[in-house]
Amino acid sequence: MFKGFIFDLDGTIYRGDQLIPGAERVVRRLRGNRRKVVFLSNNSLQAREQCATKLTRLGISAPPEDVINSTFVMVNYLKKVAPQARLFAVGEAPFVEELKRAGFQITDEPKETEYVVVALDRTFNYQKLNIAFQSVRLGAHFVATNPDRTYPIEEGEIPGCAGMIGAIEAVTGKKVEVVVGKPSRIMIQAALEVTGFMPEDCILIGDNLETDIRMGKDSGMATGIVLTGVTDEKTLEEYKHTSFQPDFVFQSIADVENLLIG
Amino acid sequence: MFKGFIFDLDGTIYRGDQLIPGAERVVRRLRGNRRKVVFLSNNSLQAREQCATKLTRLGISAPPEDVINSTFVMVNYLKKVAPQARLFAVGEAPFVEELKRAGFQITDEPKETEYVVVALDRTFNYQKLNIAFQSVRLGAHFVATNPDRTYPIEEGEIPGCAGMIGAIEAVTGKKVEVVVGKPSRIMIQAALEVTGFMPEDCILIGDNLETDIRMGKDSGMATGIVLTGVTDEKTLEEYKHTSFQPDFVFQSIADVENLLIG
Repeated sequence: MFKGFIFDLDGTIYRGDQLIPGAERVVRRLRGNRRKVVFLSNNSLQAREQCATKLTRLGISAPPEDVINSTFVMVNYLKKVAPQARLFAVGEAPFVEELKRAGFQITDEPKETEYVVVALDRTFNYQKLNIAFQSVRLGAHFVATNPDRTYPIEEGEIPGCAGMIGAIEAVTGKKVEVVVGKPSRIMIQAALEVTGFMPEDCILIGDNLETDIRMGKDSGMATGIVLTGVTDEKTLEEYKHTSFQPDFVFQSIADVENLLIG
Repeated sequence: MFKGFIFDLDGTIYRGDQLIPGAERVVRRLRGNRRKVVFLSNNSLQAREQCATKLTRLGISAPPEDVINSTFVMVNYLKKVAPQARLFAVGEAPFVEELKRAGFQITDEPKETEYVVVALDRTFNYQKLNIAFQSVRLGAHFVATNPDRTYPIEEGEIPGCAGMIGAIEAVTGKKVEVVVGKPSRIMIQAALEVTGFMPEDCILIGDNLETDIRMGKDSGMATGIVLTGVTDEKTLEEYKHTSFQPDFVFQSIADVENLLIG
């Protein structure tokens, strides 16, 4: 049926530090049946390598090449549009390290800054807001990894990348130019390239109607929602009259195995 | 002609730490002619007393009672709507001190917080954003001192209170409920009460079309713009077809003296 399976991570494969029951088995069986499995996450706190390490530690062995997160997509985006750019990064150390590793020069001098690059940053403060503000006023581009309002942790949720974007937009009066993460086409394109297939041969499976399902549909692939994350039956009902309609509804990733039989 | 003169401060009476030429003379002559002079500012970094002290130091003696700033207006607003409320304050020490002085209990425990009260805060950080976020999600009200995108300093501008509001709005998905500062009716009402006159007996003079002039017109008083702050001839031209039309255009506060002759 489908040749490529693109899985969202948080709420689909795991929650916090717990695999969702059946996830390991489904991924193993798909791979055993020569399906390509790719993992997709808006997380910008880690490099793709760290993301792959976590999956492997939880029991799903994953080479970094099969993991697409918004840190990775941002680095690739910048390499393409502005390979020599000097950046001011709003983000945590691993994110900034990834930018440096890719050869970008990091600065906190607004006059030098060509791109303000924003990710979730639990060390965000007024000083960073001011540098971003001065940079954008002097003409720097303003891009971000993901538009997520919140970030899930085991005890609930904490402010997401949208907080940093919102603060900078409010003081500069300018909208963020590009957000590379879900539901952006840039993100799904990166995942598709890893599968090596056309959209019609792939299915995107995730827990969020407005990011996962929307992005899958926009790109022309099949979509499946799982009810182990932010969406439940009630949410499905509320979204019934929107365009975010998944092709499949799975109670959890365990049920994805049916696609191999069906 | 007018009995009450309500003056904006930054860009009208002074710029940074410099009186605008003529300001002292105009205020002195107005008072000498038994006009009531009131000073109005969105500044939330200080208590009204500190604001009055600055004016006096610069050469315009001002009792605290004649100064209305957004700190003062916020304290009065909260005293009225929620006199016993426990507050989480996003703001600098003098702002928080004013809330305490007014008898409010300050907390950083989201479960206890009934109002998240936001002011310009150069010590703003992710931790404060998180406490505000958790509090609002648990049902706390969300109010702010002023909507200013930026705050003028001698070397230019730095991020204003809008940055803090924007971050909290973005992560909670909720709009700030009340902003007491200019151009709010709450602010002009406080100033009017100090004059003791009706709106038609007063004139509001400031440098900002979208806050000062808008608020003056909304309240039914005469308005005058000065060109020593954020508005110049070009801005006036750009706003020609909007409803923010002042009754008087003054090159600077020095020209306000003409109202005594005219």
